[in-house]
Amino acid sequence: MIPKRPVGVVGVGNSRFGRRTDVSISELAWEAISQALEDAGVWQNDIEFFIVSNVGFWSSEMLPAVVIGEYADLTPKGTLRVEAACASGSAALNVGHNMVASGAADLVLVVGVEKMNESPTEVVVEFIGRAGNYFWEFENFGLTFPGYYAFYATAYMWRYGATEEDLCRVAVKNHYYGSLNPYAQFKSKITVEDCMKSRYIAWPLKLFDCSPITDGAAAVVLASEEVAKRLTDTPVWIEAVGYASGTSNLSKREDFTSLEAAVKAAEMAYRRAGIRQGEVVKHLDVAVVHDCFTIAEIMAYEDLGFVGRGEGVKLVREEQTYVGGLIPVNVDGGLKAKGHPLGATGVSMAVEITKQLQQRADKGRQVDVKVGRGLAHNVGGTGHYAYVTLYSLEKPRRW
Amino acid sequence: MIPKRPVGVVGVGNSRFGRRTDVSISELAWEAISQALEDAGVWQNDIEFFIVSNVGFWSSEMLPAVVIGEYADLTPKGTLRVEAACASGSAALNVGHNMVASGAADLVLVVGVEKMNESPTEVVVEFIGRAGNYFWEFENFGLTFPGYYAFYATAYMWRYGATEEDLCRVAVKNHYYGSLNPYAQFKSKITVEDCMKSRYIAWPLKLFDCSPITDGAAAVVLASEEVAKRLTDTPVWIEAVGYASGTSNLSKREDFTSLEAAVKAAEMAYRRAGIRQGEVVKHLDVAVVHDCFTIAEIMAYEDLGFVGRGEGVKLVREEQTYVGGLIPVNVDGGLKAKGHPLGATGVSMAVEITKQLQQRADKGRQVDVKVGRGLAHNVGGTGHYAYVTLYSLEKPRRW
Repeated sequence: MIPKRPVGVVGVGNSRFGRRTDVSISELAWEAISQALEDAGVWQNDIEFFIVSNVGFWSSEMLPAVVIGEYADLTPKGTLRVEAACASGSAALNVGHNMVASGAADLVLVVGVEKMNESPTEVVVEFIGRAGNYFWEFENFGLTFPGYYAFYATAYMWRYGATEEDLCRVAVKNHYYGSLNPYAQFKSKITVEDCMKSRYIAWPLKLFDCSPITDGAAAVVLASEEVAKRLTDTPVWIEAVGYASGTSNLSKREDFTSLEAAVKAAEMAYRRAGIRQGEVVKHLDVAVVHDCFTIAEIMAYEDLGFVGRGEGVKLVREEQTYVGGLIPVNVDGGLKAKGHPLGATGVSMAVEITKQLQQRADKGRQVDVKVGRGLAHNVGGTGHYAYVTLYSLEKPRRW
Repeated sequence: MIPKRPVGVVGVGNSRFGRRTDVSISELAWEAISQALEDAGVWQNDIEFFIVSNVGFWSSEMLPAVVIGEYADLTPKGTLRVEAACASGSAALNVGHNMVASGAADLVLVVGVEKMNESPTEVVVEFIGRAGNYFWEFENFGLTFPGYYAFYATAYMWRYGATEEDLCRVAVKNHYYGSLNPYAQFKSKITVEDCMKSRYIAWPLKLFDCSPITDGAAAVVLASEEVAKRLTDTPVWIEAVGYASGTSNLSKREDFTSLEAAVKAAEMAYRRAGIRQGEVVKHLDVAVVHDCFTIAEIMAYEDLGFVGRGEGVKLVREEQTYVGGLIPVNVDGGLKAKGHPLGATGVSMAVEITKQLQQRADKGRQVDVKVGRGLAHNVGGTGHYAYVTLYSLEKPRRW
């Protein structure tokens, strides 16, 4: 076993998610950065390196890392931008994690930010569509992201007998928790009927099955053990990271009811944390998963091994992923209701898991912390990228 | 001192640089990847993670990392894309370096690729211009990159008495070495007169003072000590990496004859390698520097401490940066003649330094290897990012 230099989350911040035409991309990032620095009790000059997660097709600033760094008074610290589509935030966290774990730095800031409303909605939808498989699937078939996930939904419904109402139940849960999260884009609760009455975007997915276009930012301060000890009594350690990539071409996928990359990323994370497949749930207090569409959350339950194949829909029907259930999932509102600012999403997942494990989540959505471990599942594209990150109150000592 | 897990370069590859409309971005990347894998003696399945360096504004593929990974048969290995403008390649190398140094992986592939000719030249020039300081300097003043570097050139000429002929001498050297490099975009030698007769792009910079628009790819395989030992007798170790960022706004720069970020990055790299400022040259056998414009190479000599302020131009006049001189610089042709495919440039620098230290550079441009150390200086934007990487035949044991 290779010994590991532990890496702790020592400060977190999250901007309000939503349609943030009131701020520039730098101002938006600063909302999260300033919170995270204050939470960690450090100044900009203490930070040795900062990593910016941003997809940015829709932005006018072409070098967001330096522009944000300058606004946030982080210049002249070293920096770079990370992109892994919608999984950019988790990829950036892992870059920071490795940087601290290697000994290259003791204090690193990871910032995720996306300002999607800088372009009109139809342009954003086209850009995201191009990110599927450009030449074949976008140009020839005009596939956009709701279309891809509609394939997954129909395959899942056909094989396992899930219904449109079942999908809506995911939205109902996530909107419920969004209503309890002050940073969420959508704060109104919805019913299954509201969801069923919403218009079709790509059958069987309706408007309320889809995550929104969001502006938002999140930030996390990562520290080595020595520095973490000085800053906080309750660091949340990055226990293990798993990652994988998948084909961008749907015709090459073995199965439409599962994302192979997510399965492989989860396997790697569990192996590194010493968690056995088949008993995952008992080792977790909370999870955030990549519910870009409601079907994606159900697939994630199964890809992560929370339940067996075809049983994800039962978790939803039995409300087992609410607080107090078998495994609380997306009790921050998820991408669905908290919002999905691409580059910020994975970092915001880290913010949520950290706060949950430190028992400082908002009232009504704090989970019971028993085993002291949380999971973040972050997918890029239609399963092109997957990152699964395990956070723990217990310090990891090996890879 | 924090002990370091050594990271070695065990395989390198470089595509032919130039106007590569004959290949797709994936095919272009594969030219470099296949060479690097063969050079390392490994297969795709041995690679644990791959990092793609790509700026990509001009490309139709929005998720180049997965598309290239799939073409190169690297799927389902984990991946991400790194961007740090023209310094992306060095930033990506450092991400790989930290990943291996941390213990997270033993074998990582770093691929740099850029296909700039997917868009018309005027679009590429506009995109690069937007990457300066978008809102103020691009929108208001229409500044493009030759304009920025023309500021540097005039400031340097005014302060230190350099002439247009002096700038041209850099181009003459780099074209000479480009003629000896089979991968270079430009293979014809030029004279000072040729350069002086070329048309002005942004006074005092002429066509031959500017690096070209280039398609190209480069790849490097990084390995832990244990794996490196199995693969090769002559790994080239990443000894130290220094990095810094600088303001994107020229009105905030202290000085136009130096890039502050490059100075700081060099200081960090030298400190980490235990090299004293003032005696840098005697600790180096060879360097590659970021000569996006001829003036940039002269500024680099001084920012890196090869000589004092104002003395860079003397190195050029005395031909001290040719093979056999005080310190051979850009004897692969540099960005100027080898070409500058943004995301590939930093990785191609690693390829060049590795081959030089292993004494397998092309005939006529192999340097004498005495101290066993080389340097790569890679700048992003107009000094927004800087990375300085030291490579050594001697294994580093600490950060």
